[in-house]
Amino acid sequence: MVEWIAIDWGTSNMRAWAMDGASPVAESASDMGMGSLRPEEFEGALLDVIDPWLGQEIVPIVACGMVGAKQGWVEAKYLSVPTAPTSAALTKAPASDPRISVHILPGLSQSSPADVMRGEETQIAGFMALAPEFDGIICLPGTHTKWVEVSAGEVVSFRTFMSGEIFALLADKSVLKHSIGEGWNDSAFLEALSDSMSRPEANASRLFSLRAEGLLHDLDPDIARARLSGILIGAELAAARPYWLGRQIALIGDPRLSAIYATALESQGAPAAQADAPRATLAGLTKAYQTL
Amino acid sequence: MVEWIAIDWGTSNMRAWAMDGASPVAESASDMGMGSLRPEEFEGALLDVIDPWLGQEIVPIVACGMVGAKQGWVEAKYLSVPTAPTSAALTKAPASDPRISVHILPGLSQSSPADVMRGEETQIAGFMALAPEFDGIICLPGTHTKWVEVSAGEVVSFRTFMSGEIFALLADKSVLKHSIGEGWNDSAFLEALSDSMSRPEANASRLFSLRAEGLLHDLDPDIARARLSGILIGAELAAARPYWLGRQIALIGDPRLSAIYATALESQGAPAAQADAPRATLAGLTKAYQTL
Repeated sequence: MVEWIAIDWGTSNMRAWAMDGASPVAESASDMGMGSLRPEEFEGALLDVIDPWLGQEIVPIVACGMVGAKQGWVEAKYLSVPTAPTSAALTKAPASDPRISVHILPGLSQSSPADVMRGEETQIAGFMALAPEFDGIICLPGTHTKWVEVSAGEVVSFRTFMSGEIFALLADKSVLKHSIGEGWNDSAFLEALSDSMSRPEANASRLFSLRAEGLLHDLDPDIARARLSGILIGAELAAARPYWLGRQIALIGDPRLSAIYATALESQGAPAAQADAPRATLAGLTKAYQTL
Repeated sequence: MVEWIAIDWGTSNMRAWAMDGASPVAESASDMGMGSLRPEEFEGALLDVIDPWLGQEIVPIVACGMVGAKQGWVEAKYLSVPTAPTSAALTKAPASDPRISVHILPGLSQSSPADVMRGEETQIAGFMALAPEFDGIICLPGTHTKWVEVSAGEVVSFRTFMSGEIFALLADKSVLKHSIGEGWNDSAFLEALSDSMSRPEANASRLFSLRAEGLLHDLDPDIARARLSGILIGAELAAARPYWLGRQIALIGDPRLSAIYATALESQGAPAAQADAPRATLAGLTKAYQTL
């Protein structure tokens, strides 16, 4: 029996769960992310995925992520920090199919330093529901990694870093693409991380060396990839130091990327626990559903 | 009368001058840069531009730039610094047309920190020919900006910064593209430059703010553009400080970009003179022609 439907709708893809209470009974996904849809196309893209789950009754649908951005289905508001990461302030999306009623979660905003998130707040809410005593820092690694300070059930402050997107641009679209491989090397990563963190002011001079070492000294492309990551994550950890230094840290994100962050933090004497990202997302969406 | 032909052949375009001694008598250009040509296509691309200048006699052609890269017409060697920036070590390119004889200048390389240049060495050689007493730092702003230490007629060391390419990737291909305009704002540039130079370790946290301030506070896109440039050039100046601090500085490059670097350096108490880039290129190519 499908009681409601949970949706995580990001820029590049969408994931859907048919839910019975807090438990998923079926799961589906689509690569029709917010970035490839015009506002009037969201309903059709959603129905393509969830149609098998619909029956006679109206099914409530709760969605988080970039689906609520200005360029999304309908603009959902932002809650301003400090705040609990979810609320009853859901925004209804316009849908013509009478079988569905779609509700989009608000994102979070911070006035100064200016920052925003959409989607991560739901994972944070879910994580906090699963670990109500947690007090510390949640890091959500991704294209735009978020560092989030959580205390007494509220998001206190947060900061977004573009390291993931910059890594992809440099590795795939810049002159470095000729020198960057697909593999990995842990010690090259940690060495570059350490250099980057100890002298972040020299970082601008470190990037082109990856290309020049490839040309002059046949630098192993896998080492080059790990070093590029070490430079960028090192610059991020240097800038995010006020967040993680001496704090309890939880990582929520893609397991492979989270493991890289965990290795980096561990090397700085800051052990971090890795949480299950889909589980956190579902817990957050369930919490929002329960406010309907 | 066309005595010889000078060619500046970069990644994205090519510029040619018909020469009489050290004086250009005609000029032409093409957008067939190294990046869009296979090795066997260079000769045809060259003839398309210079054919009107060819007669009965064999015309010597002297070329600098990425035409001599591994992916170019033929790979020209690198001279290892410290060295005078040109030499008689020209590489002959394979050409089937009997009217031309094509010679490509060597680039410069530095073993540690690993670095390379192709094209800029010719501008440096030309600048040094025009200003033989110069002793100090030459900065060549561009996609890959070079900082070059010159002393006693030799290039002593140099360092490449990818700020120009990173600016273009962030402004055109990243999430920041929604917030970056086409205009400019001098005071926003200088403020971001100063922040970036005084706390370069925080730079990784400054980029996404441009997007968030656009969403939350309607940040003027022209201010966002100037600020992005200030952040990146500030990071570069922080890393290049050992080069420019307390030294005589000459800028050789696109006049608009050179003016931005001059403004930035001026704000740090480091005035820089702007040199004429095409004149330096031609002087460098002429010097190489005279060694044939």
